[in-house]
Amino acid sequence: MDKKRISILGSTGSIGVNTLKVASHLKNEIEIISLSCNKNIDLLLKQVKTFNPKTISILNEDSYYKGKEKLKSYNIEILKGRKGLIELSSRNNIDLLMNGLVGASGMEPTLCAIKNGIDVALSNKESLVMAGSLIKKAMKKTGAKLFPVDSEHSAIWQCLIGENLNDVKRLILTGSGGPFIDREIETFNKVTVEEALNHPNWDMGRKITIDSATMMNKGFELIEAYWLFDLGYEKIDIVIHPQSIIHSMVEFKDSSIKAQLGIPDMKVPIQYALTYPRHVKAYWERLDFFKCKELTFKKPDYKRFPCLLLAIDALKNLGTSPTVLNLSNDYSVQRFLNKEIKFTQIAEINGMSMKNHKWIEKPSLEDISKLDIWVKKFVYSI
Amino acid sequence: MDKKRISILGSTGSIGVNTLKVASHLKNEIEIISLSCNKNIDLLLKQVKTFNPKTISILNEDSYYKGKEKLKSYNIEILKGRKGLIELSSRNNIDLLMNGLVGASGMEPTLCAIKNGIDVALSNKESLVMAGSLIKKAMKKTGAKLFPVDSEHSAIWQCLIGENLNDVKRLILTGSGGPFIDREIETFNKVTVEEALNHPNWDMGRKITIDSATMMNKGFELIEAYWLFDLGYEKIDIVIHPQSIIHSMVEFKDSSIKAQLGIPDMKVPIQYALTYPRHVKAYWERLDFFKCKELTFKKPDYKRFPCLLLAIDALKNLGTSPTVLNLSNDYSVQRFLNKEIKFTQIAEINGMSMKNHKWIEKPSLEDISKLDIWVKKFVYSI
Repeated sequence: MDKKRISILGSTGSIGVNTLKVASHLKNEIEIISLSCNKNIDLLLKQVKTFNPKTISILNEDSYYKGKEKLKSYNIEILKGRKGLIELSSRNNIDLLMNGLVGASGMEPTLCAIKNGIDVALSNKESLVMAGSLIKKAMKKTGAKLFPVDSEHSAIWQCLIGENLNDVKRLILTGSGGPFIDREIETFNKVTVEEALNHPNWDMGRKITIDSATMMNKGFELIEAYWLFDLGYEKIDIVIHPQSIIHSMVEFKDSSIKAQLGIPDMKVPIQYALTYPRHVKAYWERLDFFKCKELTFKKPDYKRFPCLLLAIDALKNLGTSPTVLNLSNDYSVQRFLNKEIKFTQIAEINGMSMKNHKWIEKPSLEDISKLDIWVKKFVYSI
Repeated sequence: MDKKRISILGSTGSIGVNTLKVASHLKNEIEIISLSCNKNIDLLLKQVKTFNPKTISILNEDSYYKGKEKLKSYNIEILKGRKGLIELSSRNNIDLLMNGLVGASGMEPTLCAIKNGIDVALSNKESLVMAGSLIKKAMKKTGAKLFPVDSEHSAIWQCLIGENLNDVKRLILTGSGGPFIDREIETFNKVTVEEALNHPNWDMGRKITIDSATMMNKGFELIEAYWLFDLGYEKIDIVIHPQSIIHSMVEFKDSSIKAQLGIPDMKVPIQYALTYPRHVKAYWERLDFFKCKELTFKKPDYKRFPCLLLAIDALKNLGTSPTVLNLSNDYSVQRFLNKEIKFTQIAEINGMSMKNHKWIEKPSLEDISKLDIWVKKFVYSI
């Protein structure tokens, strides 16, 4: 059997590192063709030595020159900056692109790969949130597919295997509710960066951990599910499930519900995206039902988590609304992490961005670029 | 679309009545060809008037003559006794036989249908427990299939749709644990018939409700799962889940677990067996996650429920061991319902039957008939 050729965008991030763990364990089935990072050169160099990729791409310019110097004795192609990243994403010397980039900058690489007919294992949810209609259009044209990597969307994907979409009544996205599910709403404006970075169940990157605390992440997942599974937004519900054991569910028209469960470990959905439709033997910890806590469910609280409502609004409006929500959130979370704004201002600013931007029904890539400039200016002006 | 032609064995029992409820709601898709009952003539007559079957079969002789008299103005074929039941089961003027019979007497009808190439929706778990190897052999020969109707096996079946059996690590049969899951073990010998008939979650027939109280039912389900899904017994585990919301699960080799959930309602697995692979719209109550209790899990308690151990032993030995366990349990439960023996004696007698019978590796139908005579005599001699 030929090995599956994989490129990883964001190989030094949380998803990238876990993807390489899976790749190590599946080394007889998977070949790493290229890696990309922003500026974590030390880790990238280790990865290069272990996985021996043909090409790497380094976003940060200083890091690029540093990397080039350190790898001068290696027979390896080194691409630079945004241009290098886009070049890497557009190549078709691979079978699957793992997009583990964080934030809006991950969108264009997804689109490039899809346009080139390359399947994408998608962790970067911003791709679909920002440019769902563009990506779907490209998928139709080239036949390239998206393999969800988010645990929730992977769960839904797994529950839908062998089933007919016409038999689905609704998708049930579960969410832990993040660290503040039971916090007094009056104290939300005092949430510190440290508190927000302390997620109870999942070990993820900083940006997505904040999005989990505001539940913006769950909102984005709602939008992502809309594009991934071709079901109306009224057919996608959110259920709070604090233990993160049930990763999501599908309810069918006969009232039968299928759920996918397991310990919270990103390696499971990552491996499934790499080995689909197989569930290949893995070495990691398994769920022990005799040690696992009781499983509970509750309604999402839109008062505590207004970002959820913004996502539903964005899905109702479509066009540039989800795009702006996403862009605005990237910048407002950055400002929160920089301790420039309060936790509650993330949602406030996102809502203002949506309200004040000039809505376009069918944005092009250029429209989205222009919006980015507008949104950045807008968010930083507050 | 041609309607699916269905016969129901045991149409006045719990499974039969629920099957006809499903058939009413799917009346544009399903045609009832024949019905059978033991002696509940009043209900059978109502069913005849509603569903207009071509043939009915009545087991009890008095009831047969009563039925014949009452239906003399009807253009309907009426079969009599065990011979009639077997004749009905052997016809191939149908697409699917729903076997809702209770106990060992349901085995031969399953075998007859399978031998005739007719698919069987199997609620009568005794069929596979007693004659698993004979039925599997016949299935291989004619290509007829078994569609599980037990909620647990239906759950596993649904979780396996679209999956590869080679990727399965284990099947996880869930069980409520019955009414005595938390009862003091010292008081088990004082369990009354009324207490044992009071199941917390499921509304079922009397025999199966007692089997649920002893957990013999879960043991039989283990044996049934072994034959249905072609996996070694060491790959089938039992997990106690008192709420009966998760109906069973499949764990894959990558640690991903798929579960099927819903409110405890036999109409769901019944309808799925009739409409497979579709999940057709249904009118009944749906699971409300915001009202549902917390879901918990615990280990099965083999001290409280020795019948479980007997089932595992039977599965290790195979041959006539499961057959005898099943036959013995039919008679010992009958004796318990007649208040002739104590609750704890059900397991004791079953164990003695297994130990004392003359084991045969590959029993024929005749061997099983002979065993029945021996076991009945043995159980009633105690």
